[in-house]
Amino acid sequence: MMRNPLLVPDLRELIQGGEEDVLREFLEDQHPGRVAEFIEDLPDGDGDAVFRVLAPRERAEVLSYFGADEQSRLVEAMPPKEAAELLRVMSHDDRADLVNRLDEDFVDEVLPNLAQAEREDIARLAAYEPGTAGAVMTTDYVTLPAHITVRDALERLRHEAPDRETIYYCYVVDHNRRLIGFISLKTLILARRSAVIEEIMQLDVIQAKVDDDQEEVARTIDKYDLIALPIVDADSKLVGIVTHDDALDILRREQTEDILKFGGVSPDPEADDLPYWQSPVVSVVRRRIKWLMLLFLAENLTTPVNEHFQWTLDEGQAPALFFFMALLTGTGGNAGSQTVGTVIRGMALGEIKLSHTLRVVLREWLTGTCLGILLGTAGFFYIHYWRGQPWDVSAVVGLSLFGVCMWSNVIGAVVPLVARRVGIDPAVVSAPFISTLVDATGLIIYFTIAINVLGLAK
Amino acid sequence: MMRNPLLVPDLRELIQGGEEDVLREFLEDQHPGRVAEFIEDLPDGDGDAVFRVLAPRERAEVLSYFGADEQSRLVEAMPPKEAAELLRVMSHDDRADLVNRLDEDFVDEVLPNLAQAEREDIARLAAYEPGTAGAVMTTDYVTLPAHITVRDALERLRHEAPDRETIYYCYVVDHNRRLIGFISLKTLILARRSAVIEEIMQLDVIQAKVDDDQEEVARTIDKYDLIALPIVDADSKLVGIVTHDDALDILRREQTEDILKFGGVSPDPEADDLPYWQSPVVSVVRRRIKWLMLLFLAENLTTPVNEHFQWTLDEGQAPALFFFMALLTGTGGNAGSQTVGTVIRGMALGEIKLSHTLRVVLREWLTGTCLGILLGTAGFFYIHYWRGQPWDVSAVVGLSLFGVCMWSNVIGAVVPLVARRVGIDPAVVSAPFISTLVDATGLIIYFTIAINVLGLAK
Repeated sequence: MMRNPLLVPDLRELIQGGEEDVLREFLEDQHPGRVAEFIEDLPDGDGDAVFRVLAPRERAEVLSYFGADEQSRLVEAMPPKEAAELLRVMSHDDRADLVNRLDEDFVDEVLPNLAQAEREDIARLAAYEPGTAGAVMTTDYVTLPAHITVRDALERLRHEAPDRETIYYCYVVDHNRRLIGFISLKTLILARRSAVIEEIMQLDVIQAKVDDDQEEVARTIDKYDLIALPIVDADSKLVGIVTHDDALDILRREQTEDILKFGGVSPDPEADDLPYWQSPVVSVVRRRIKWLMLLFLAENLTTPVNEHFQWTLDEGQAPALFFFMALLTGTGGNAGSQTVGTVIRGMALGEIKLSHTLRVVLREWLTGTCLGILLGTAGFFYIHYWRGQPWDVSAVVGLSLFGVCMWSNVIGAVVPLVARRVGIDPAVVSAPFISTLVDATGLIIYFTIAINVLGLAK
Repeated sequence: MMRNPLLVPDLRELIQGGEEDVLREFLEDQHPGRVAEFIEDLPDGDGDAVFRVLAPRERAEVLSYFGADEQSRLVEAMPPKEAAELLRVMSHDDRADLVNRLDEDFVDEVLPNLAQAEREDIARLAAYEPGTAGAVMTTDYVTLPAHITVRDALERLRHEAPDRETIYYCYVVDHNRRLIGFISLKTLILARRSAVIEEIMQLDVIQAKVDDDQEEVARTIDKYDLIALPIVDADSKLVGIVTHDDALDILRREQTEDILKFGGVSPDPEADDLPYWQSPVVSVVRRRIKWLMLLFLAENLTTPVNEHFQWTLDEGQAPALFFFMALLTGTGGNAGSQTVGTVIRGMALGEIKLSHTLRVVLREWLTGTCLGILLGTAGFFYIHYWRGQPWDVSAVVGLSLFGVCMWSNVIGAVVPLVARRVGIDPAVVSAPFISTLVDATGLIIYFTIAINVLGLAK
């Protein structure tokens, strides 16, 4: 809905006509995210020309909408002094990420142009463990002392605003930078100008620790509808903030990650943040082969089961049983996948807690029973009328479908709950894992029912 | 990390001692989300007492942190006049949702206490189609005329702030309420007080239409890092805004929904928003049986395949082939699930586009080939040394594992891309769907390789 292909030719005309002022004026009226789109849609040289027209602050904002590679390319094409000016006005978290990825020689030329405080800030932010609050937070936030008036606070904000990621949430710190209160710009605007900050600030500040998991941080922002969450170190000193847009990025990434796990690809802290096209096939194969091998070994449980029951297929026994084996194991895997998907979702949304284990299992058992009755009945008639099998073989398949549905639903409910209980991320309990788990047991159910219903004996 | 069990006994003491002023003062220093937690953690009577101590505006904020049932219970316990006062100060989107769920007789008593404009606002918001921008937007936003000065705009904000969901983003409208510009509070604070809004506003406003899909709206907020997105009707008139916290809710819900689909539970617009415990088992069964039946029919393709190849298991041919059938189909399903999970994730993150179809298929084919070589080789030796099969049977299983891995990876890549191309949500291409799809084809690969390698003939 956002791209405007009509504008691109006009922009090219302005660039080629050298009308930089008109171009700059037009770009100033646009959202920086939109300017980034224009630059992407233009041929390389023209896009770079548009980027160069922008003032440093606008460049910094536009830059944040590009992918990692394009950011490096644009910045490395600049003279070191200009690049340093850009880094000076960039959001502090984006800046640390960018410097991490730039060519080392280039960085060595650029950094001496920055003040020491800026260089230290970059080094500090880059040092946090990936996946923690520290690694996603930014340091360009607003702090206020407790004793000043609202009038002075607003004046301060006015001065600091250009260099802050957000001025809508302000944090009150003591002389040791310990976080002692919170006040929103809305509260400031509504307050008497002569009121003192400490009288009107919120004392109980929702916060996170610098080594908290980033997903935890995103969930807190989500839960309390925050624009930003302050991050403190072990001494309760304020060291950064994580903003609402970071929370969206974290949740989106973590949740698509869950689909990957659910599909049976093992998590890999180093590769998880790589886009699809950037993970080398070798690392993709490494991530998948682990699970595939493990499941292969588990799947091998079906081999002795088949060996054990092979005699039932002999002539004189019930060779037709063979026809419906894949049908049975397949249906069990499908029913199990449905249940495990439902239970993992309920756990992710916080609707299913560990204390509900028994209730969940009972509920899924009941669901499995209903599904089993429906599918078993349909299967019974289908096998007899469509596949031309006698009534007794049809009954075996029907009863087995019933048993397998019930069993798979119970397994699909129990396994993720047990995983959580022993401290394993339940999202790792993938659909393939459940399918594999119910394959061997499904075959045992099938052949046992067959032996009893058909009265088979060795 | 947020709950504080130590405070609850203290709170109970204050309530039972009737010390309402101390209690109110304590609660005012807390985030409303935290107050909601206290109320939840207290026994019912005490929790209600805490809620009653709060001023209407605080009540409204605290209420937004409760689940739907608890909200209704708390409000229906109020005298109608008090409930009306609460509705007056609630966020407009929450209010419309709440009224929708309250007892009708109670609503009839409450609504006459509200101004007509408020009643109309509630009715209008409740009328939008679920799942659209209209259904999630709120109407308590700030608009500014284009011709006023920054000084006047700030004065206006100060007056309107208490009744607005956010004052950080202001929308500029003409006399017909058409959206003509945007200005953030940050820009206002930085601007000269005598500047006129239309000189400094952003002209190109990122916006959505009232009937756009809510997921589209959330993605736009995510993409442009917005605090709020304005929603316009067909005449470009501003009718509401969707805020950053709504975007988080929408994405979280839509993405856990994707896990459900991926597990093979068909989407159901009416039941999708129901929490796990509130969907009746009957409706759960209805949602699952559709897919299960469909997959059952597809899974039946394995029956004629087995019938066709049964002779290969006869004595004198290769009865051992039977042992490894479930192993083969299972592994194919697992490899296919891995690929489809990866591809769906890439599509959800926007990394894989339709134009990449050929590249994706080639890449997954290459991955499948590598996986097939590794697993095939491992399987070959495993079958010979551990399961005691002769070299030729081991070779059949090894080669089949190779073929099935390659084939399942290609299918897992092609199917979601084809689904998107024909307009089906690729997340519906579930792990069970792919497993089922590769079961029959996997068996064909297996038996064909067996016939050729072992030189079997009828």
